[in-house]
Amino acid sequence: MTQLNIQLLLTGNELMTGDIVDSNSAMIAQQLLPLGLTISRKITVADDLNMLANEIKSISEQADILIINGGLGPTVDDLTAQALALAMNSHLQQHPQALEHLTQWGQQRGITLDQANLKQAMLPAGASIIDNSIGSAVGFACHYQGCDIYCTPGVPKELAIMLEQQIIAKIKQQVPHSVHYQVKRYQVFGIGEAKLQQMITQAFPQWPAEVLLGFRAASPMLELKLSIKEQQAQPLLQHWQEKLFELLGDHILTTIDNDMPTMAQHVIKLLTAQGKTLTTAESCTGGMIASLLTNIAGSSKAFEAGFVTYSNEMKTKMVNVSPKTLTAHGAVSEQVVLEMAQGALSQADADYAIAVSGIAGPDGGTAEKPVGSVWLAWGNQHQLNSHYFCIKGKREYFQLMVANRALDLIRRQLINSPQTPFYFD
Amino acid sequence: MTQLNIQLLLTGNELMTGDIVDSNSAMIAQQLLPLGLTISRKITVADDLNMLANEIKSISEQADILIINGGLGPTVDDLTAQALALAMNSHLQQHPQALEHLTQWGQQRGITLDQANLKQAMLPAGASIIDNSIGSAVGFACHYQGCDIYCTPGVPKELAIMLEQQIIAKIKQQVPHSVHYQVKRYQVFGIGEAKLQQMITQAFPQWPAEVLLGFRAASPMLELKLSIKEQQAQPLLQHWQEKLFELLGDHILTTIDNDMPTMAQHVIKLLTAQGKTLTTAESCTGGMIASLLTNIAGSSKAFEAGFVTYSNEMKTKMVNVSPKTLTAHGAVSEQVVLEMAQGALSQADADYAIAVSGIAGPDGGTAEKPVGSVWLAWGNQHQLNSHYFCIKGKREYFQLMVANRALDLIRRQLINSPQTPFYFD
Repeated sequence: MTQLNIQLLLTGNELMTGDIVDSNSAMIAQQLLPLGLTISRKITVADDLNMLANEIKSISEQADILIINGGLGPTVDDLTAQALALAMNSHLQQHPQALEHLTQWGQQRGITLDQANLKQAMLPAGASIIDNSIGSAVGFACHYQGCDIYCTPGVPKELAIMLEQQIIAKIKQQVPHSVHYQVKRYQVFGIGEAKLQQMITQAFPQWPAEVLLGFRAASPMLELKLSIKEQQAQPLLQHWQEKLFELLGDHILTTIDNDMPTMAQHVIKLLTAQGKTLTTAESCTGGMIASLLTNIAGSSKAFEAGFVTYSNEMKTKMVNVSPKTLTAHGAVSEQVVLEMAQGALSQADADYAIAVSGIAGPDGGTAEKPVGSVWLAWGNQHQLNSHYFCIKGKREYFQLMVANRALDLIRRQLINSPQTPFYFD
Repeated sequence: MTQLNIQLLLTGNELMTGDIVDSNSAMIAQQLLPLGLTISRKITVADDLNMLANEIKSISEQADILIINGGLGPTVDDLTAQALALAMNSHLQQHPQALEHLTQWGQQRGITLDQANLKQAMLPAGASIIDNSIGSAVGFACHYQGCDIYCTPGVPKELAIMLEQQIIAKIKQQVPHSVHYQVKRYQVFGIGEAKLQQMITQAFPQWPAEVLLGFRAASPMLELKLSIKEQQAQPLLQHWQEKLFELLGDHILTTIDNDMPTMAQHVIKLLTAQGKTLTTAESCTGGMIASLLTNIAGSSKAFEAGFVTYSNEMKTKMVNVSPKTLTAHGAVSEQVVLEMAQGALSQADADYAIAVSGIAGPDGGTAEKPVGSVWLAWGNQHQLNSHYFCIKGKREYFQLMVANRALDLIRRQLINSPQTPFYFD
């Protein structure tokens, strides 16, 4: 059979002005990939009723599937329903299910629906609803000129849920099984895309053409993808997956089914399973490690206390770092992070501790300790480890990488990994 | 005169598969904005010769300016020059300047040019060169069907240089001064897009059509935009801007010139200017407030210590909350956050403190204190304030909003605002 012609229409003034960068179409493309489907054409226009209606008309003449993203909100510049009705020579009418959804949504939040909200229940006649379990705007689907049209919200999380729970399943019904190829996705930490590509090319010059390699940066993680187009390539996929696991060891955190877990999720899961607690003493990451951990629901079982000790004085006062050590070695030193970890362990009465001290920049570097220098200590009462890294990049990147490496080092200790990690930007 | 019709054509398989997210079109849009120009339509297609040629043909019929991005590289799937020649019924020929550029580029790198490299010197007949001072691919421009066509490289740095040094200047020549319209952007906190739209409609039913209202969600902030298309609307813009300031008061944090400052940036800036320090005692936000503050370069002057006191025991041990208070009122109570703030102030010897305790969910709610309940305390030794909020939404949203409201309340205290804030989702 011929490949389905799938097109995207994205709407939003903010997409045209460059105020936001579109990541939704990448999400849609990634979700279609396991079905062997690709998007053939993508149009982005501002919130203009006539332009939208014209694009919808012309795309629906060519395409089998049109996914419209954006323009479902409550404001006057949210025009998707209206434009679709115009394109189809149809009209808007209040959709009972959409109204019910909005009413419930309002009730849960103690909000009385106003005209702007109620506008979101006005859909083209004949549209069917696509549920939105987290936001006010329902999605909807229409069929016009032989084209299936799906209207989806611009809010990435809401789009993700609609794709996963409903739209992809509907599109799947149109794809015969022979087209489905298999995709395996792995979560990798500590190696950048270019470096990983190079490592694989060097280690496996005989890598087979049937097993396609793909990468997707999802900072600070990387997604590594293996895919095959034919069922008979399955044994090859299996074989080369094992080779990859040998090469990358504990840099592969997990195979990915749906969402990528964060590094903090891996750590909280391990701590909870082992009934252990973790504490943090942070200087240059300033609470980011604690924040990443407590973002996770249920983290309170594993995390009771964190110390943000930005100044020397507070390192002494809060986690008992000796003023002598600070004077002798400086705040960014192995001795200081070891004392910070020790002090945090005893102050918080925790099983494990992470301590970090470094120079996030842009100022504060010296010849001996340049911006990007960081000492990490991690471990428990029996085994405290420490390591120095120099992580070049902007402040934000530095903090994110330090926080994630620190969590990764604790993760490796929690799984008793005998492997020494290697980290490449 | 009428607004120039500017369209973009982006090419690249990796843009269609979602392996990379397009940020180039945002860059182009941002560069056009100061000329009062916007992009009316943006098309993205895979590296397919016929599709590209068809799009070029049809866009050049409608548009005054077409910027093509991508497809200038040395590989077989770089098809822009070929597609453009096909669209214009022209042919490719070796361009002497392009060849010279390539030869120099190769010499500087000690690379002998191969067939793939030399392909980059094959341009449509009559094309003029756009210099590339950092990469191998030159850009080029053609004129066809009344449309100026600029072909630019996909590598962001190379695109940036071509835009800044050459393309924007050429486009500017086509724009008479009178077309420049004015945009004013304001940063708003505490009011969602739908609510703000409603407030403005209700307060100002006579809002003039010449002053366009726009919104852009940038959670947890909102960007409010006023724009005019004609110079003579300037007094109207001025007048209605003042009206908006009256209506929204200190919910408007700043007018935006380039980047939106974060709430933490506002707070750090105020603290630094006043020579004051801030400390945090966080339960339900788990370090997020400290992390937001220490994300800011130079924050160490204003922030020395933060306490993440997730458990009751740690609230007592780290910031001296009395066990009696915890037993009598529970961890999520006015009394506890006031004691947390007081304890943090004295432990960190800081001028200001923020304390938060709440139920981030999804578990832990009761009938009396449902998920989303949070008590905040903020202030200094002379004036400690407290407030209860109930913020519905997922854990992540809850933490982000609590952290930002807490910072906003400190910001208001630092600017001695007499206004009482109102917060709407």
